[in-house]
Amino acid sequence: MADRNASRMRRSTTADQIKQLILTRDLKPGDLLPTEAELCETLGVSRSSVREAMRTLATLDIVEVRYGHGTFVGGMSLDPMVEALVFRGVLSPDGSMEALREVVEVRVALDLALAELVVERTHAGEADADALRALVAEMVQRAERGESFLEADRAFHTKLFAATGNRLAEQLVGAFWDVHTAVIPLLEIPMPDDIRQTAVAHGEMLDAALAGDVEAYRRAVVAHYGPLQRSLAAEASRR
Amino acid sequence: MADRNASRMRRSTTADQIKQLILTRDLKPGDLLPTEAELCETLGVSRSSVREAMRTLATLDIVEVRYGHGTFVGGMSLDPMVEALVFRGVLSPDGSMEALREVVEVRVALDLALAELVVERTHAGEADADALRALVAEMVQRAERGESFLEADRAFHTKLFAATGNRLAEQLVGAFWDVHTAVIPLLEIPMPDDIRQTAVAHGEMLDAALAGDVEAYRRAVVAHYGPLQRSLAAEASRR
Repeated sequence: MADRNASRMRRSTTADQIKQLILTRDLKPGDLLPTEAELCETLGVSRSSVREAMRTLATLDIVEVRYGHGTFVGGMSLDPMVEALVFRGVLSPDGSMEALREVVEVRVALDLALAELVVERTHAGEADADALRALVAEMVQRAERGESFLEADRAFHTKLFAATGNRLAEQLVGAFWDVHTAVIPLLEIPMPDDIRQTAVAHGEMLDAALAGDVEAYRRAVVAHYGPLQRSLAAEASRR
Repeated sequence: MADRNASRMRRSTTADQIKQLILTRDLKPGDLLPTEAELCETLGVSRSSVREAMRTLATLDIVEVRYGHGTFVGGMSLDPMVEALVFRGVLSPDGSMEALREVVEVRVALDLALAELVVERTHAGEADADALRALVAEMVQRAERGESFLEADRAFHTKLFAATGNRLAEQLVGAFWDVHTAVIPLLEIPMPDDIRQTAVAHGEMLDAALAGDVEAYRRAVVAHYGPLQRSLAAEASRR
């Protein structure tokens, strides 16, 4: 790792200088960066070096290029990880199925492991209960119409994790959802017949969290993964 | 997310073409990619487009450029995530301290949540027990000499998680370790006086896993984070 970092650093000196400039000027995500011309002058490097560095930093979501508006400090999201993970899933010997299984396993682990914290904070009123209730209602309605509800589902989980105050955990959950959402269509897995159980179990997770009941929350988490896990198992044995 | 992905895709068409070529030619990590000239011809794009795309893909660890040897399919590791997380830590309002706290919280969560799987597989002989024992011995010796043992510690955790067969979980643990290792020196936190407890607790984790005792394993996990968590808490109250 040390070696890899060292070689990356040698490769991207201008990128490192730009990162340093973000720090010394105390810029925050969303702040405008100096123009390309100003950066060339300040850092004493060529325009093509600045452009190359900016592309590297944009790939890492450390900067965000808004065409016609300028370059801004980026959100430093986990999007780069999502892109690599999705592609790795497609590449892996057992294909996307294995990637999805791994993602679901880690999601279950995080949901159960952070249950106490989620319930404690939600019970203390730190979650947006109204927005979460609206998302549950939307999922139940869609399930009853036989529609999928991946977006509402992702929003529910990230909003609930936002209450933990652990931004890394919140973003990881969002990132795993993105891998999940990208991989599902590649697998052509039919929507589980019992997907309504998943929709309803979200409501049970929310009620348990609001009531401060960690054990009921954990049971609802497990129930909520049931339809997906059964359909993955069926699919795996079919292939 | 959908919009962001769409704009990323528009931005990086040549990168997508190269990803597609990796798939259609069934290339695997470590395989050699066609030369720049061949790619220009195959994809019908300019040399500068190929170079730009390769830089983006290298940043994501989807390809790896070995100077003088050619470009290979990369390991698709979580290194890009580590880079963004470390930088975000440095940037965040409360600095690296907050980032480290978040990383440790997620590490504890993953260790406890995957305890059953780790213990089951280790008990079944799927972990490299000799290598793990040697790492424990190294950590204890270093602790007794008052030295730090971050590398042996990282190796212990990734080796233990390798037994789960969940490569995502294994890589996540490695990635969080890298964030951890990068952020610690920035914080100038003194090594905990009771760091020997951490070294010894690794041995207890291993013994419990080999014996198939999940509860003892969980207790050892908690004990093993003790010195770090106490030193983080002391540091947070001092600042």
